[in-house]
Amino acid sequence: MYHYTALVTCLAILFYFITSVQVARARATYGVKLPAITGNPDFERIFRVQMNTLEWMPIFLPAMWLFAIYLSDRIAAALGVVWIIGRIIYLIGYRKAVERRGPGFGIQALATIILWFGSAGAIVWRLMQG
Amino acid sequence: MYHYTALVTCLAILFYFITSVQVARARATYGVKLPAITGNPDFERIFRVQMNTLEWMPIFLPAMWLFAIYLSDRIAAALGVVWIIGRIIYLIGYRKAVERRGPGFGIQALATIILWFGSAGAIVWRLMQG
Amino acid sequence: MYHYTALVTCLAILFYFITSVQVARARATYGVKLPAITGNPDFERIFRVQMNTLEWMPIFLPAMWLFAIYLSDRIAAALGVVWIIGRIIYLIGYRKAVERRGPGFGIQALATIILWFGSAGAIVWRLMQG
Repeated sequence: MYHYTALVTCLAILFYFITSVQVARARATYGVKLPAITGNPDFERIFRVQMNTLEWMPIFLPAMWLFAIYLSDRIAAALGVVWIIGRIIYLIGYRKAVERRGPGFGIQALATIILWFGSAGAIVWRLMQG
Repeated sequence: MYHYTALVTCLAILFYFITSVQVARARATYGVKLPAITGNPDFERIFRVQMNTLEWMPIFLPAMWLFAIYLSDRIAAALGVVWIIGRIIYLIGYRKAVERRGPGFGIQALATIILWFGSAGAIVWRLMQG
Repeated sequence: MYHYTALVTCLAILFYFITSVQVARARATYGVKLPAITGNPDFERIFRVQMNTLEWMPIFLPAMWLFAIYLSDRIAAALGVVWIIGRIIYLIGYRKAVERRGPGFGIQALATIILWFGSAGAIVWRLMQG
């Protein structure tokens, strides 16, 4: 069983859910009515945080789970926590200005890249072992 | 094995696929040509149904599967069916007017919240048992 | 274990990641500044390639994995490779013109449909066996 990775999965989808709630709030704050998704730069930045997190979910979640299965539950979960922390820094920065999205984005990207290369490497290794 | 949850996964992605087909049809009906995603409120509501369903997939699917693995395949699948029913009500309502998206949205959100809290609770319980 | 499907999962998310990188590059090339997602048709087509790939990830990945678990790791992975090839053709075509997105789209859709029907059929069969 992969209890740590399972728990971090719950935390990651909770964080992602919070970015969705912030979009709903920003609609009210900045007066961007459904179904519009454009019209106010402050709203659009908060919307982009949610969208970008959504865009990375199908990269991050499979990479973390393959890493857990092929290498280590605890290391996968630890890298998942780094991903969430990077995402929180990204959220706080991007809310303020487009230019401030960089550091958080870099942290979560690095965690994902390690998860991906770890998984891919371990899978190829196993296939080569027959 | 988790046959019921597996079957509901197939049904959920079938429903989601149907929302995508409706966007393609709405493009023709309302004359919103690719690659545009704005321009007509009737089109935009149908587009938002698909987008919102997409946005919830990485919350719903992992939560349902973790619930199935940690608690019960049958209850996870039953909550998954409630999610799909909520989504169908949401689709029918939102197509008519932005204001009518509420009830269906609430049903699918409630099903997801139960799946998430059930999973998270069971995982923490297992970790505490060592 | 499902080594082949695991490897194709890594390749599929790598391809999807590349579509995201191309959106970032297209922003620079066509001068579409964040957080905007509209304003230039050439940018919008490249953006739609990424979005459409994202839209299909929660259909393709679960269908491929259920096929691997219920039927065959190797056939699931082979169909996954067909999906990636279809996506590459779709990317090349759509970059040039909206009208040229058809063939690649059809290939990846066909691979996904086979994965879905195979999975759904095998799951129902198992449930009927009790």
